[in-house]
Amino acid sequence: MTEQTLTPSTRQRIEQSFAAQGLMQSMSARLENLAPGHCSLAAPVQPAFSQQHGFAHAAATFALGDNACGYAALSLLDDQHDVLTSEMKIHLLAPAQGVELVSRGEVIRPGRRLIITRADVHARDAEGRETHVATLLGTIIPMRLK
Amino acid sequence: MTEQTLTPSTRQRIEQSFAAQGLMQSMSARLENLAPGHCSLAAPVQPAFSQQHGFAHAAATFALGDNACGYAALSLLDDQHDVLTSEMKIHLLAPAQGVELVSRGEVIRPGRRLIITRADVHARDAEGRETHVATLLGTIIPMRLK
Amino acid sequence: MTEQTLTPSTRQRIEQSFAAQGLMQSMSARLENLAPGHCSLAAPVQPAFSQQHGFAHAAATFALGDNACGYAALSLLDDQHDVLTSEMKIHLLAPAQGVELVSRGEVIRPGRRLIITRADVHARDAEGRETHVATLLGTIIPMRLK
Amino acid sequence: MTEQTLTPSTRQRIEQSFAAQGLMQSMSARLENLAPGHCSLAAPVQPAFSQQHGFAHAAATFALGDNACGYAALSLLDDQHDVLTSEMKIHLLAPAQGVELVSRGEVIRPGRRLIITRADVHARDAEGRETHVATLLGTIIPMRLK
Repeated sequence: MTEQTLTPSTRQRIEQSFAAQGLMQSMSARLENLAPGHCSLAAPVQPAFSQQHGFAHAAATFALGDNACGYAALSLLDDQHDVLTSEMKIHLLAPAQGVELVSRGEVIRPGRRLIITRADVHARDAEGRETHVATLLGTIIPMRLK
Repeated sequence: MTEQTLTPSTRQRIEQSFAAQGLMQSMSARLENLAPGHCSLAAPVQPAFSQQHGFAHAAATFALGDNACGYAALSLLDDQHDVLTSEMKIHLLAPAQGVELVSRGEVIRPGRRLIITRADVHARDAEGRETHVATLLGTIIPMRLK
Repeated sequence: MTEQTLTPSTRQRIEQSFAAQGLMQSMSARLENLAPGHCSLAAPVQPAFSQQHGFAHAAATFALGDNACGYAALSLLDDQHDVLTSEMKIHLLAPAQGVELVSRGEVIRPGRRLIITRADVHARDAEGRETHVATLLGTIIPMRLK
Repeated sequence: MTEQTLTPSTRQRIEQSFAAQGLMQSMSARLENLAPGHCSLAAPVQPAFSQQHGFAHAAATFALGDNACGYAALSLLDDQHDVLTSEMKIHLLAPAQGVELVSRGEVIRPGRRLIITRADVHARDAEGRETHVATLLGTIIPMRLK
């Protein structure tokens, strides 16, 4: 994690993987920022992903947090690897209400067999103010492509 | 958890809450079974909720597992309460591929302040065969309605 | 996990590993039962491992649950492997009070790179009655010995 | 968490609780630092708390991480409350070897019913260099004293 910028090919791989996720398309999610060991994602809060009170469902928050962890991990791997989530814990800290959700993931510990990651998800209101709505901690597995 | 069937009003509350979740509608999810301390949900595997390889995204699996936990908890509460997920851990055990996902949640330990729950999610193929794709363990909070 | 009994050499490896753990000795813990994918441990509740109210400390409960998971995993591996805990979640369900703690661990999903495990810990009173005091869910890594 | 120092009575309550834990005595653990929402603990690495390779057992690391979380939470509560751990996840990041273990816990989200906390545990070698050996994330419950 000493490099400060991604190689173009790594960035391209992440963008392609992101674009290939039907869920990210359905959520109108976008990659906000990528750096080695770090990834930020954002998506609008929308009724199609709500829980019973109209807030974003925990699974929508999870989707952004989990993907930020996965792509933070993938940013450290060469083009022979993809990533899978093995396990992930999410704490829901406040109602996910507002205009959009922003997720920031980072690698805590890179490894050949396991990559330990964390992410925080904030809700942004119309004025750009952020509320901390969730924190995630989990294990990403590097998968060697055939 | 000694009762074997839900009261009609408890069943109705759960069905109404489920119907009010935009995400469950978007996923075409349905309540398969309800009993005191237990809840089963199912939803088709579909491209709008896929990850980069076309399998169901971990967040889709999470959505079904988390809701099965939440409604298993709600089934034990009176009509003055709703539920919130405080934290949830998910282990992804196998690719979530097939025709549909089925989630079965149960209450491990009911409590006045916290309800500890678990769920298992299976993928069903066209012949109805099931593969265990995820296990979840987490904390549900009873929320007193005003 | 089709075999019903361990080979003598697997049993011996687990017994040796268990005996080599200073903590298990300090806790006067013992192996109660071993089968492929399963391990039960027990230890007396004692003041040297108590929390501020005199119950067993969460870490004592964790020690038994974590080791039951680890040895359940090791029971499925050949003699070229040891195990490490990568991550473990514990829910404390009731005060760990009584005469002894009993932990039962099992493998949920074996794998070449990761082994997913769970354990339940019960407190036994003087009459042998058990109270469920904790449940654990976590990831064990097989480590190839040099 | 705007205060910078603890009241003497809060500090005293934490010191008394810590002293009452048989496990902290057995581990020769000490309170290193206390501030509102923060707690640091340390303990020597010793054979009585080792795993099979002579490193500190995951449960010893857990003990320090869990207590740092609990006392970080207790530091925010009045003298009518004690704390309990509801659930805690630990990731073991590196072998816990060295002279001593140092745990630093903090409150992520205070609450009337639940307090969400995290901790990091480092191993210190004879030169005072630290290695990050574990990270924890979990839920503490405030308990009203009778």
